[in-house]
Amino acid sequence: MIADRDAPTCVGLDPVYARLPASIRERYEIGQENDPAAEVEAIVEFGRGVLDAVAPLVPVVKINIAFFEVYGGRGIDAYLELVNAAGAAGMLVIGDVKRADIGHSTAAYARGQLAGPRRPDAVTVNPYLGLDGIKPFMDVCREESKGLFVLVQTSNEAARAVQDARLESGDTLATHVGRLVNEWAGHESLMGVCGYSALGAVVSPRDVAGTDALRAILSRCTFLVPGYGAQGQSAERVAHCFKEDGTGAIVNSSRGVIYAYENERYAAFAGAGWQECVEAACRDFIRDINVARIRTCEGGHSPR
Amino acid sequence: MIADRDAPTCVGLDPVYARLPASIRERYEIGQENDPAAEVEAIVEFGRGVLDAVAPLVPVVKINIAFFEVYGGRGIDAYLELVNAAGAAGMLVIGDVKRADIGHSTAAYARGQLAGPRRPDAVTVNPYLGLDGIKPFMDVCREESKGLFVLVQTSNEAARAVQDARLESGDTLATHVGRLVNEWAGHESLMGVCGYSALGAVVSPRDVAGTDALRAILSRCTFLVPGYGAQGQSAERVAHCFKEDGTGAIVNSSRGVIYAYENERYAAFAGAGWQECVEAACRDFIRDINVARIRTCEGGHSPR
Repeated sequence: MIADRDAPTCVGLDPVYARLPASIRERYEIGQENDPAAEVEAIVEFGRGVLDAVAPLVPVVKINIAFFEVYGGRGIDAYLELVNAAGAAGMLVIGDVKRADIGHSTAAYARGQLAGPRRPDAVTVNPYLGLDGIKPFMDVCREESKGLFVLVQTSNEAARAVQDARLESGDTLATHVGRLVNEWAGHESLMGVCGYSALGAVVSPRDVAGTDALRAILSRCTFLVPGYGAQGQSAERVAHCFKEDGTGAIVNSSRGVIYAYENERYAAFAGAGWQECVEAACRDFIRDINVARIRTCEGGHSPR
Repeated sequence: MIADRDAPTCVGLDPVYARLPASIRERYEIGQENDPAAEVEAIVEFGRGVLDAVAPLVPVVKINIAFFEVYGGRGIDAYLELVNAAGAAGMLVIGDVKRADIGHSTAAYARGQLAGPRRPDAVTVNPYLGLDGIKPFMDVCREESKGLFVLVQTSNEAARAVQDARLESGDTLATHVGRLVNEWAGHESLMGVCGYSALGAVVSPRDVAGTDALRAILSRCTFLVPGYGAQGQSAERVAHCFKEDGTGAIVNSSRGVIYAYENERYAAFAGAGWQECVEAACRDFIRDINVARIRTCEGGHSPR
């Protein structure tokens, strides 16, 4: 499906009420009071609008549950509503939940966040608790043909104090975790087409040499790549997350696409239509990634 | 409050429907069908029953949100209902949520999981994303006098592949993270009475020397200590998580207490009353920890 669209890209839905288009907010604002129920409704309307705009363009959406947990139970119901709306629109859905616990608690997380038809196609998980923070999710992947992305190298500077810690072996911690993840990914029951496992990795590029090294170590893993756009990484740098044949990564952009109507470049062009801004930013994002990917990857096939 | 009770202990609420007392389950089972709404109601009844039994004995309850996320939005509402019931019963409540993300997403988690009167007094967080996976929670701690426990060394064997990674400096990763956490904990706005910070650490004891070393490094941090009981650690080993004056740790027991009615030792003694079993196991837990604490800590004051 990702190959079909020739756009190895993903739009991230991180909805914050205060940043929603005025045209949505004004219909939910009753007086000056904060009304959580109305905010959640507005967020769902916005999320559906983003999905309408981007579903014809990108194969994957990543929905970050943090922005829904703000609202307690009704927030989680809204998150699941959008997960299912994205699925109905033909998109693969990544639940960005970054969970991990010890074994029996992780089993509960795996059941709550990944198992069953009303849950995402894949989720993100955190490696700090080792394999048994991940294994119950792997079991669901196997039984239900779902996917998993383990955090290896995240996009935030402050992560370096932990992830760049230098090991006795010479590896950074991120590289050490990368080796573990590629080993876990190799279990035959998780291996799928083209040599990729259902177990992928979240890898944000830093320097080119380091990214190339992680790309080589994590040979079995599709990379979910944060950091492009609002977080400051260029398409050229991100392109090193692809293998030489142009496969192996899904690049995410969240705020740069979903809040495009805040950007003069799009607002001037699209007038009052916030969805047109989102669509235009999404097209620019895809083109930017594909141009850089083709330039970087020897075997990159040209976009249709 | 913890000093008042002279029981530096915490009961962990990890409710799995299938393990609830038969006397509760039989009132919620309608036919053979799984009914998530009925399961959640049964879990809330069980949770309230556990709170009734242990609130007079232990000052702290830890509620693991994983077991509630299984049920989507209604599960989260049930989690929050029990958080508030525990607060009303006079207990401090730790929300065991193990969250972390990059900065703006962590801010959403901090708002959803910790901020405001209807949320726990403290939560657990994961250090893999460094300080900005934690800082928004620290801001809430400061503004609302709440607390935080950062995972440093967890109780599961499989965590060793990550947390025991040996750094160039000679530290393990857990020790390295411990040094960072103690540094973060030292911010003056977080420091409270007796030299302890609002920022604590989750530390499960392994060997005695390693535990003593972490105890020395994390001088400003209260330890939240998993691993005792059902997870196999003895009170003697756990006691090394206290400082020599007998302060500095809260020992948790989850399954060994809340499912005490499954244990012949208590079931035989208490007959059909599952709450009496929970209460008896809770008393044994407290005594076991206090005896070991007093034996280990030179300055440990005797229980009343």
